[in-house]
Amino acid sequence: MTAQKVQITPAAGKLGILLPGMGAVATTLIAGVLAVRKGTAQPIGSLTQMGKIRTSGANPKIKDFVPLADLHDIEFGGWDVYEDNVFESALNAGVLDYKTLKPVRAEMEAIKPMKAAFDPHYVKNLDGTHVKEYTTKLDLAEQVINDIRTFKAERGCSRLVMVWCGSTEIYHELGDVHRTLAGFEQGLRDNAATIAPSMIYAYAALKEGVPFVNGAPNLTVDMPALLELAALTGTPIAGKDFKTGQTLMKTIVAPGLQARSLGVKGWFSTNILGNRDGLVLDDPDNFKTKEVSKLSVLDSVFHPEENPELYGDMYHKVRINYYPPAGDNKESWDNIDIFGWLNYPMQIKINFLCRDSILAAPLVLDLALFMDLAQRAGMSGVQEWLSFYLKAPQTVAEARPEHDIFKQLVMLHNTLRGLMGESLVEAAAAEEYQDEPAT
Amino acid sequence: MTAQKVQITPAAGKLGILLPGMGAVATTLIAGVLAVRKGTAQPIGSLTQMGKIRTSGANPKIKDFVPLADLHDIEFGGWDVYEDNVFESALNAGVLDYKTLKPVRAEMEAIKPMKAAFDPHYVKNLDGTHVKEYTTKLDLAEQVINDIRTFKAERGCSRLVMVWCGSTEIYHELGDVHRTLAGFEQGLRDNAATIAPSMIYAYAALKEGVPFVNGAPNLTVDMPALLELAALTGTPIAGKDFKTGQTLMKTIVAPGLQARSLGVKGWFSTNILGNRDGLVLDDPDNFKTKEVSKLSVLDSVFHPEENPELYGDMYHKVRINYYPPAGDNKESWDNIDIFGWLNYPMQIKINFLCRDSILAAPLVLDLALFMDLAQRAGMSGVQEWLSFYLKAPQTVAEARPEHDIFKQLVMLHNTLRGLMGESLVEAAAAEEYQDEPAT
Amino acid sequence: MTAQKVQITPAAGKLGILLPGMGAVATTLIAGVLAVRKGTAQPIGSLTQMGKIRTSGANPKIKDFVPLADLHDIEFGGWDVYEDNVFESALNAGVLDYKTLKPVRAEMEAIKPMKAAFDPHYVKNLDGTHVKEYTTKLDLAEQVINDIRTFKAERGCSRLVMVWCGSTEIYHELGDVHRTLAGFEQGLRDNAATIAPSMIYAYAALKEGVPFVNGAPNLTVDMPALLELAALTGTPIAGKDFKTGQTLMKTIVAPGLQARSLGVKGWFSTNILGNRDGLVLDDPDNFKTKEVSKLSVLDSVFHPEENPELYGDMYHKVRINYYPPAGDNKESWDNIDIFGWLNYPMQIKINFLCRDSILAAPLVLDLALFMDLAQRAGMSGVQEWLSFYLKAPQTVAEARPEHDIFKQLVMLHNTLRGLMGESLVEAAAAEEYQDEPAT
Amino acid sequence: MTAQKVQITPAAGKLGILLPGMGAVATTLIAGVLAVRKGTAQPIGSLTQMGKIRTSGANPKIKDFVPLADLHDIEFGGWDVYEDNVFESALNAGVLDYKTLKPVRAEMEAIKPMKAAFDPHYVKNLDGTHVKEYTTKLDLAEQVINDIRTFKAERGCSRLVMVWCGSTEIYHELGDVHRTLAGFEQGLRDNAATIAPSMIYAYAALKEGVPFVNGAPNLTVDMPALLELAALTGTPIAGKDFKTGQTLMKTIVAPGLQARSLGVKGWFSTNILGNRDGLVLDDPDNFKTKEVSKLSVLDSVFHPEENPELYGDMYHKVRINYYPPAGDNKESWDNIDIFGWLNYPMQIKINFLCRDSILAAPLVLDLALFMDLAQRAGMSGVQEWLSFYLKAPQTVAEARPEHDIFKQLVMLHNTLRGLMGESLVEAAAAEEYQDEPAT
Repeated sequence: MTAQKVQITPAAGKLGILLPGMGAVATTLIAGVLAVRKGTAQPIGSLTQMGKIRTSGANPKIKDFVPLADLHDIEFGGWDVYEDNVFESALNAGVLDYKTLKPVRAEMEAIKPMKAAFDPHYVKNLDGTHVKEYTTKLDLAEQVINDIRTFKAERGCSRLVMVWCGSTEIYHELGDVHRTLAGFEQGLRDNAATIAPSMIYAYAALKEGVPFVNGAPNLTVDMPALLELAALTGTPIAGKDFKTGQTLMKTIVAPGLQARSLGVKGWFSTNILGNRDGLVLDDPDNFKTKEVSKLSVLDSVFHPEENPELYGDMYHKVRINYYPPAGDNKESWDNIDIFGWLNYPMQIKINFLCRDSILAAPLVLDLALFMDLAQRAGMSGVQEWLSFYLKAPQTVAEARPEHDIFKQLVMLHNTLRGLMGESLVEAAAAEEYQDEPAT
Repeated sequence: MTAQKVQITPAAGKLGILLPGMGAVATTLIAGVLAVRKGTAQPIGSLTQMGKIRTSGANPKIKDFVPLADLHDIEFGGWDVYEDNVFESALNAGVLDYKTLKPVRAEMEAIKPMKAAFDPHYVKNLDGTHVKEYTTKLDLAEQVINDIRTFKAERGCSRLVMVWCGSTEIYHELGDVHRTLAGFEQGLRDNAATIAPSMIYAYAALKEGVPFVNGAPNLTVDMPALLELAALTGTPIAGKDFKTGQTLMKTIVAPGLQARSLGVKGWFSTNILGNRDGLVLDDPDNFKTKEVSKLSVLDSVFHPEENPELYGDMYHKVRINYYPPAGDNKESWDNIDIFGWLNYPMQIKINFLCRDSILAAPLVLDLALFMDLAQRAGMSGVQEWLSFYLKAPQTVAEARPEHDIFKQLVMLHNTLRGLMGESLVEAAAAEEYQDEPAT
Repeated sequence: MTAQKVQITPAAGKLGILLPGMGAVATTLIAGVLAVRKGTAQPIGSLTQMGKIRTSGANPKIKDFVPLADLHDIEFGGWDVYEDNVFESALNAGVLDYKTLKPVRAEMEAIKPMKAAFDPHYVKNLDGTHVKEYTTKLDLAEQVINDIRTFKAERGCSRLVMVWCGSTEIYHELGDVHRTLAGFEQGLRDNAATIAPSMIYAYAALKEGVPFVNGAPNLTVDMPALLELAALTGTPIAGKDFKTGQTLMKTIVAPGLQARSLGVKGWFSTNILGNRDGLVLDDPDNFKTKEVSKLSVLDSVFHPEENPELYGDMYHKVRINYYPPAGDNKESWDNIDIFGWLNYPMQIKINFLCRDSILAAPLVLDLALFMDLAQRAGMSGVQEWLSFYLKAPQTVAEARPEHDIFKQLVMLHNTLRGLMGESLVEAAAAEEYQDEPAT
Repeated sequence: MTAQKVQITPAAGKLGILLPGMGAVATTLIAGVLAVRKGTAQPIGSLTQMGKIRTSGANPKIKDFVPLADLHDIEFGGWDVYEDNVFESALNAGVLDYKTLKPVRAEMEAIKPMKAAFDPHYVKNLDGTHVKEYTTKLDLAEQVINDIRTFKAERGCSRLVMVWCGSTEIYHELGDVHRTLAGFEQGLRDNAATIAPSMIYAYAALKEGVPFVNGAPNLTVDMPALLELAALTGTPIAGKDFKTGQTLMKTIVAPGLQARSLGVKGWFSTNILGNRDGLVLDDPDNFKTKEVSKLSVLDSVFHPEENPELYGDMYHKVRINYYPPAGDNKESWDNIDIFGWLNYPMQIKINFLCRDSILAAPLVLDLALFMDLAQRAGMSGVQEWLSFYLKAPQTVAEARPEHDIFKQLVMLHNTLRGLMGESLVEAAAAEEYQDEPAT
């Protein structure tokens, strides 16, 4: 099987990355990209920059295989409910130490957040002061659109992408206002309570044809109304919830247990984290949003309905605890009760001492670069091939999401191979048998 | 791409599974298979019995896809340095409790080990009493061949396979005696010190055209001399070292870290175990054999030579400790020092409270069934597609082994698909995109 | 200093141990005492039976030093909301396996719970069926008193003690009805909503001069009304909440950190348990009772008000999670953030795979035997010297409770020494310098 | 019982603290004391500075109760096999970051080690270059004595103490040369191979009447020859091996288990550390010294000979692993197999992410200050009351060492109370009953 190489617009000019929410994750991303540009750091954890891909006869870095924007051509911007510049915000976040920030201080100080579209109802534990005033939510959306245009013009960007790096909003089910674009726009005019700030950013981005990624578990772009808008403007979207610490480990370990036909009786996951994200999630309504996102993972990997003897009685519990001493060092502890031959029980305990923003920052970079690539390649709507990065991947139509990180990676690789006209067959075989000729 | 279905001889008649070493692993296997036959247990952990495979349009169990021997058609036999019958040996091993063993007690008591080919030089911490006397090692090999023939005739088996379940022998590098079949046979006549008991079993099996699997890390069939013999008699071989607890976790977690381009600075692995295996490994010479087997794993997954920024400085240390209170409950603790964005360090700690024989038993079953399948399908020599089960997979020619368990599974699946004439292409795509049509 | 030996009535005749709540803890206790009497088990974990005490020149077992009831002279009785006999209840609880229970099966089957005084308002997640009917709570109390008298007469006991082994009731603060005995008795007549079932048992016991221990964290005897009654009838009382898994570890580790003047920034404690106790605590109102009991521990050990540089900013969080796969195997995970020289941070992680009822059963035995001793020695009111066994020790008057398990043990030992006329001084010195002459 | 206050010479003038071995521990100590003097840090982890003591009616800090040297009156000096000044050595050690060291940089740079008395036979993995040349070991000892006198004179010290902070030397049993002072001195003249460098420092110190503490597990002052010298010159000595991470936890947790009469079946302890200490211990001969020191701890707490049902079959194993990624962050993992009621097994796992030098530094300070106090109070010979700080406490005559950290603390407190004429009785009672009047 041979594939046709897709026509991709070159990555000429500057790419603006717009970040609603310029807290720990966003500032860590910005500091890192600036440091990499200065040559003082490596972009560890970024698949686009460090990862390789097996192609017919070679094994290049991904950034040398597909035409991505160069890190030197990126401009950062964004919005926040606090007016601190990006350097001050990074110091407050406490993720990076001063020594790391110092060499890029001036550049970071120059980046100042625009006033946020904010609604305290959606994030009770924050009290932002640097927020837009508005009459209707439509007015608010128009202000954001205006910000986007101004940023693009002032910075001389040829393309933009937007990645939501804000807090988790409170839980909401899909309502009527989210079902059609017309209904949604009426809701904007009517100040519908069920339109969250994140939706306003997404609406503004899509109106402007700016690809949008949702890094939190909120209902944001996974609704018919905004899918309709994305289709209308031919814009790529992706979501939701960056897959960082505990869920990352879960989508690594669960496929391994399943590969070996080992049964799972219970999986208990607890987290302690002390940053702003933890504070927000200390509110039960906000936690509910996160819990739904985190719980779906195992079922998708284990398919209990198809493997009832192994996974039919699995008890899965996820807890998040605000614990200030941890700061940004999100720590997880998992207890996994498995069973094997003759039903004998065994246990796996995993303690992951991770750093939330350190894990999330390179995901934001990769998502931004890949979304820009998608747009230049003419791909619009849900970019399911980016599931690799997301805790609750948004899928096309009614498809069940894939959570197995290894299958997600194959999906991502094959999409890239397809774009470049590589045969999926040969690529797959190469991937599978690596260094030997296929049997 | 379409494939041609391979001609496979049906699994008619009885399959004899011969086990050199009837201790914890072998007796756990036998008790389990007998219980499954009685309908009182499920063969958890066995891919052949519980696992599924994605084929064109379906998702059958593996045992319903390829023509494997039925569990009701299996006969067990073997050798051991102690004369206990299999029931007594299981009680001594302490893996299974009396309640589990009771329903299959009579059948287990009927299985008595033949006298072992043993050499205390290779396993210092055991002092077997139920051993063969011999003049030369050739004489010893002929006694084993005679045992094989007698067993086959008495039990009325149509086919046999042999799986080494004995202890780890002391470390040896490949020597001259191992380089040609002629040299090896001369060594047998000369009582060459570097011919270990496990080699004698392997030689006997291959002479008789009985597929041979090495479940321990010893140098056994991975030598030119026995490869030559396997080719001569058209017999499949595989090895080495069952991949159970800690290494299993390692080949699950390491590919996950690599998928995310996260760096690894150090990986410290310690084990405590209290069974006969632990006692044997308490001797430094025997541990050396195991250590070499366990250490190779990470390099193969991470390819530090190709990814020096991420894995070039990784420090990997593996320790095994004899700790009698643990009994067969082998427990591992891993500390993994990783680094991410801007080189910030993080840690993962994994404590696996496993049961060695519970994890190993289904591997023996699967390997036996797949080796029998391979033989009936006309496949001989190294069965690299069974790497999935092995800690230090033996490869064809000079190929680098694959340790990533997910790639190993794809290799195994594709081999089965190939045997049954399924297109690898479609299968791969189905595997990758699961529930959606291929993009 | 020499002490006067106290006059202690001999432990003649039988001691009845009455247990409101005959679930996991009570049945484990009973099975164990019966097994010890048969000589098939050792009373591990029981200080009265296995522990030693240093006296002037000797080191006897405690049971050989003070005149305790003999295990052969004990009769068990109790109440439960389910009508299962003690053997059936033990099987349901799943703490002990059948092999352990079998030798004492007949004796256990002979012990049947009386109908419980129950109020679903206090324990929402249980729906008991084996419960007393009543008009007023006074009527209910009189039924319990009648049960006590009948039991004593039928079993021919010379003395009784009662130990609450029931579930944790929902949280209540002290109210008016609990302030005086008269008010409490009026409340019984008026069916006051704030009189919980546990209080009714305690009232009945104290009326009858039966020593009462509260093994749960409920407000039960720690109220002026029942203290008044205890004083009136000269009856010893103690409480509350058996100190078993996580809190036990906490009161061991915290004094150690404090001994070394190491600072503590945070202490996060989580628990998973799957027994009836866990189910009850899954209700937020019941958990609240437990949380208050568990949180007080650290402050009492660290005295942050006196050591503000070390413990002034400590963040302490305790979580309990119902997790059915764990069964009675309550498991705790603690993360302790400490700091040392120059404020450098360190961490301690403790994973305690414990068994709730296995740890609790010997505490019930010891408390029963010591309470009987106290009564025979003429000690009444709060027995603060038994703090060793309790998570939230009830104290005399306004005294601050002692949580440091090592200080608690000294207090217990000294009380016993005092009873037997041993000099506290010499005892203390012996304790401190052990095998050498004092410097 | 009333005690007589001891006559103590006031702490007038300067106290010189001499440190053989100016690596991680010594430099961390010095940086910390300098920072505390500047008021920029608290002496966390130091009992003399932060700890309190209960006395008749009060609860003062220890430094306000007994007349200790003031931190402002301390002068530091020492010897090392590398010539780096203390600031450079601290940077190499990597314990403290530059930010912490910067304010005291100048003072640290001014402290330069004297040339070391070194013998590569005793520490194979180090190759020191800054070492004394000598003909006989007596000559070497005289050079050290000369260093001591010069230091005292140049710095104007009124008193000195010496604390061994060097590496662990290889294992040696007591030999003939160590049995009498005359024999030892003859050995010095004869260059006896069994006289280690640490013994030469100790000899020099004791000759000069300088109190000596051994912070490593070597055979140094615990030999008749040097005890004889200490008696002759009336000098206090103490040893051996600072009790820091894993052993500290062990002497905290073990007494807690014993207090509850819980049995112990096994205790497995492993360590990973990556500093110079770890490198030295990677040599089996040096590890042997450490292992002996670490293994003795549990027996002393549990007294298996007196409690055979609980501790008679305990299996204790200790491992130390050199693991460079850990640096000075020594990490321990303990698995403790305990059993309770009816012999049911339970487990405790403790992962201590500690920092070796951060824990050790305040111990050196306390030991130095207390040894100086002892000397001024006229106490000579083995200071057993300082067992609190030591992994393998040296005892008077044949006495069994006390390892229980809580009993050690009582011993230390009572010694201080005795020195100040406080009644031990009242003190003990106050300690035991804390806030209430004694019963």
